[in-house]
Amino acid sequence: MDTTKKTIILFSGDFDKVMAALIIANGAAAMGDDVTIFCTFWGLNILRKTEKVPTEVKKTALQSMFGRMMPKGTKKLGLSKMNFAGAGSPMMRKATKDAGGMSLEELFDSALEQGVTFIACTLSMDILGFKEEEMIDGLEYAGVAAYLGEADEANVNLFI
Amino acid sequence: MDTTKKTIILFSGDFDKVMAALIIANGAAAMGDDVTIFCTFWGLNILRKTEKVPTEVKKTALQSMFGRMMPKGTKKLGLSKMNFAGAGSPMMRKATKDAGGMSLEELFDSALEQGVTFIACTLSMDILGFKEEEMIDGLEYAGVAAYLGEADEANVNLFI
Amino acid sequence: MDTTKKTIILFSGDFDKVMAALIIANGAAAMGDDVTIFCTFWGLNILRKTEKVPTEVKKTALQSMFGRMMPKGTKKLGLSKMNFAGAGSPMMRKATKDAGGMSLEELFDSALEQGVTFIACTLSMDILGFKEEEMIDGLEYAGVAAYLGEADEANVNLFI
Repeated sequence: MDTTKKTIILFSGDFDKVMAALIIANGAAAMGDDVTIFCTFWGLNILRKTEKVPTEVKKTALQSMFGRMMPKGTKKLGLSKMNFAGAGSPMMRKATKDAGGMSLEELFDSALEQGVTFIACTLSMDILGFKEEEMIDGLEYAGVAAYLGEADEANVNLFI
Repeated sequence: MDTTKKTIILFSGDFDKVMAALIIANGAAAMGDDVTIFCTFWGLNILRKTEKVPTEVKKTALQSMFGRMMPKGTKKLGLSKMNFAGAGSPMMRKATKDAGGMSLEELFDSALEQGVTFIACTLSMDILGFKEEEMIDGLEYAGVAAYLGEADEANVNLFI
Repeated sequence: MDTTKKTIILFSGDFDKVMAALIIANGAAAMGDDVTIFCTFWGLNILRKTEKVPTEVKKTALQSMFGRMMPKGTKKLGLSKMNFAGAGSPMMRKATKDAGGMSLEELFDSALEQGVTFIACTLSMDILGFKEEEMIDGLEYAGVAAYLGEADEANVNLFI
């Protein structure tokens, strides 16, 4: 076991939970820890490119619908509570800015710059119909076995 | 400590979160790990028999209501997000099937076959009025002390 | 590593999730474990004094709104599911009492009496505009680095 390794399963795509995950990841990385965030289900959304990407692979009607309805990147995420039909996140963003905190985008960029590893869950991608060319650069692609391998080497493993 | 032991507290009864828990449990079991899923609150629903079971023990009006309103087994679970008044889970089921993934029922059966231990939280059962004869076979029944005993021996402990 | 230490990040302010966190914390403390609950985002609500506290520090309009809309203490928390516009928690409270279980307030008091450490996340407080004089006595105030320091010494770390 290695006390300098942490893993987070980011299952949620809620603004506030993603923010919590990225704050923990950045904090651990700043302390010299090796951090892996395994993004699955709704958590995959933060890894999607915001622009429309033409893909050669045909999607099912359901997958096309998931693709249209689910947010791309961190900018459109809603709050898990008090979302007020979408007004909640902008309010939380403003309050964070007023408090001098980093924005969700800055936290995400900082995590990437600090070397946090983002793994996109391939099973979830297959189900939701997300293709690698639709995802941002610099990701790893793997399944639950890879997560478990990382978690076995870490001393803090969270499911968010 | 034992790197071959994992525990999951399954608090959620949401289709997508139960699916995540079972995928992790199956993956770990397939790698030879000893896995315990401690089902509590809404997570107890997956352990309920789907058929109506006559119980001799009288339930309070509240407990009868909980029993009627909460889903029995894995088939009626809703999504945590984009549930669309119940249409979300069937869509996620179809997308999973299209992708060649295991159904929630197959994942659950596989977990049982691979020897994953399911513990039903007795305090939650007392509160919700669930009786042992209403639950599927092969479960263990215990409280938080048992969970903590398992978690102390495990190297990955998740709350889902 | 120390098998007698546990940490919980309490991110949620839902009645049922707070209850689960406090049951685990009390159980671990009763077994002699050193338990830290790091309260962040909605989880901060349980640490707020229920009475109105005049603060000299001026809040932004957003922070005043957060302060008014978010529950103070444990008594007004809603359920994560089946909340029925607020009727869910009183039903769960009654069912818990009928079953002879401890109330949320008793669980919280017991945790404090057993020496569970509650840390209020200072970043979340800055964002939401919560001031120390608005919080109950006996808390510690710290950020993610303090959490990570505790988690590195613990063998069970949960995100609830």
